[in-house]
Amino acid sequence: MKITLNKSTFLNGLFLAQKISEGNASIQPILSNIQITANPDGKIFCRATDMSTSVTSEFQAEVFQQGTATVNGKLLYQLVSNLAGKEVTLEKKENAIFLTSHKSRFELNGLRDEDFPNFNFYEDSAYVGFESEILRELLDHTLFAVATDETKPHLGGIYLVTEKNIAKSVATDGHKLALAEYPFEGKFNIPNGIIIPRKGVNDIMKMLSDDSANVGLFYDKELKILGLKTDSTKMNIKLIDSKFPPYEQVIPQYQDNKLVIPKEEFLGALKRINLLFEGSDAGVILKIQKDGIVLTGIDTLKGKGTEEIEVDYTGEKMQIAFNIKFFDTIVNKIQGKEFSIFLHNPKSPALIKPIETSNFIAVLMPIRLD
Amino acid sequence: MKITLNKSTFLNGLFLAQKISEGNASIQPILSNIQITANPDGKIFCRATDMSTSVTSEFQAEVFQQGTATVNGKLLYQLVSNLAGKEVTLEKKENAIFLTSHKSRFELNGLRDEDFPNFNFYEDSAYVGFESEILRELLDHTLFAVATDETKPHLGGIYLVTEKNIAKSVATDGHKLALAEYPFEGKFNIPNGIIIPRKGVNDIMKMLSDDSANVGLFYDKELKILGLKTDSTKMNIKLIDSKFPPYEQVIPQYQDNKLVIPKEEFLGALKRINLLFEGSDAGVILKIQKDGIVLTGIDTLKGKGTEEIEVDYTGEKMQIAFNIKFFDTIVNKIQGKEFSIFLHNPKSPALIKPIETSNFIAVLMPIRLD
Repeated sequence: MKITLNKSTFLNGLFLAQKISEGNASIQPILSNIQITANPDGKIFCRATDMSTSVTSEFQAEVFQQGTATVNGKLLYQLVSNLAGKEVTLEKKENAIFLTSHKSRFELNGLRDEDFPNFNFYEDSAYVGFESEILRELLDHTLFAVATDETKPHLGGIYLVTEKNIAKSVATDGHKLALAEYPFEGKFNIPNGIIIPRKGVNDIMKMLSDDSANVGLFYDKELKILGLKTDSTKMNIKLIDSKFPPYEQVIPQYQDNKLVIPKEEFLGALKRINLLFEGSDAGVILKIQKDGIVLTGIDTLKGKGTEEIEVDYTGEKMQIAFNIKFFDTIVNKIQGKEFSIFLHNPKSPALIKPIETSNFIAVLMPIRLD
Repeated sequence: MKITLNKSTFLNGLFLAQKISEGNASIQPILSNIQITANPDGKIFCRATDMSTSVTSEFQAEVFQQGTATVNGKLLYQLVSNLAGKEVTLEKKENAIFLTSHKSRFELNGLRDEDFPNFNFYEDSAYVGFESEILRELLDHTLFAVATDETKPHLGGIYLVTEKNIAKSVATDGHKLALAEYPFEGKFNIPNGIIIPRKGVNDIMKMLSDDSANVGLFYDKELKILGLKTDSTKMNIKLIDSKFPPYEQVIPQYQDNKLVIPKEEFLGALKRINLLFEGSDAGVILKIQKDGIVLTGIDTLKGKGTEEIEVDYTGEKMQIAFNIKFFDTIVNKIQGKEFSIFLHNPKSPALIKPIETSNFIAVLMPIRLD
């Protein structure tokens, strides 16, 4: 293989593959490599996999000799990023890859190309269009609620279900639940839903970071793979092969004890109280009464903080406590100047909702008051 | 004690003291506190110490009740930074400090004020003026060469000597040496020199970060303390009480084998070669011949990189190797588009100098070529 190509074209083409290859050395050394294939027609394919996410990017180069090479993804990307010249030549001789540019000449030890795992992508015609922005919103608003507990693998991803032009994403770890819902145009229907693992969600976010307006999606029911496609890139994500629990039962239907809270003021108060705890997992007590909440945090060594917030409240007096970090994460996901909380009693979950939109709700379990 | 003050005045006044107090809890809990003293005339003094650097800042407040309080420096600073209001009231009641502002009310557990160490600063008249910018340059250009090896405490700081309006700073750890020299106006004469410990150098940098044009200096020969003073702040630094070794002998006097190297090109080449080593302490080999250097780095696993640089060289052919990180740090401290290296042989130190100025020289020991 011998190709010459423009540095910035090369960098764009390598970006996603090197991200996927990065950090794979501990799983299997060959997976920290990327596979570069040069076709006689000038097309270059750059592939990487961590065995659950696989990716291929396509770009153009001057191909002097077709062939395939595997080379460390992160090192190649960083070298190319730091080159002084604008053109790069990549040449394979036996198992060594020579990268030359201007006055730089690097000989990188490749691994045996035959050891690189073989994986296939779907035909262009398999994918149906989906709005990138909506997919990003669905994932971004629910990712924080995905379980990190390895004993609950079925909760280790985002449940995505689309039907009749409504797309819904749900995640829960038993302490908190997030649900996002958006209308979409198009034909990507998965009425029984799929579970995209946390790592795969992050990979999709990286793939969609270039603000492309549309992404192609394909669900391979048999292999349990989600396929994604943008202009120059295809990605396959191995889905969690499990049933998502009946989450609807967890979402409270209360209408009473409704608080309307100014968002920025609330976040500021939470942040100040949290300073007492230096980042440890701490709780905040909400004392709720007509027209006002008092937030309290107590650290036996450091001291005590209280914050008052005027709110619109019509309900019973109540004292309830929540994990500060979870509470903060949820409120940060809410758009608009105000948000609402619906309560039942100090042991029942709180339902948290934006006021200006209806695309997102979150459920948060209280913590015990001692 | 009860005072009310403007939030941003308070933050400015706390800044340096909380920096000094930060991270002291492991030495002695009381040292992570700062001591705030309110005088009846409206002057507030804010003190902190880590027992080698001590600092006091002075600012104005409305004093309702004079007195003294000690409170955790970092927590107080962060709380005040994050307050929603513009005014803050600080009140001490027994051992608790109440901070109130707008709708926030924090009760911070103070420690016993009597346990806070007592330390004194020098009278205003003791200090003589010195150009801040020159002090910063002297310290900044030599700090990297200070020994980190705890078995060499006498090399654990910057040697500063001033005489006849010439100020010189020197640091060395046996592998590298840095020397900066600047003319200055004024009367701060320490012909026998002082050794400012690394930590103290960093504290001076923090103190001078507000770009004040002048700093007052005072050397207390008896107590081995360097006193510094800006408009609102005084700092005492305990010096290393030791003799600095006769560094002049280490500085080579070669005139031959002189290389003139383009700086940015050289730094780029070093950076690319260093990518092979992923941050581990690695060496670069310089093969020097008429009109050119070839830089080579070899990692047995990753591969090999070579970079060519055209240079102006009149001397013998030579092959010599250096630690990449040290080399990079030194060249980064050099001003101008080119710099020079003087060599003797592959086992003798290299003398590295800027070409456009004469304020700085560095000496770097080569590493062994295998």
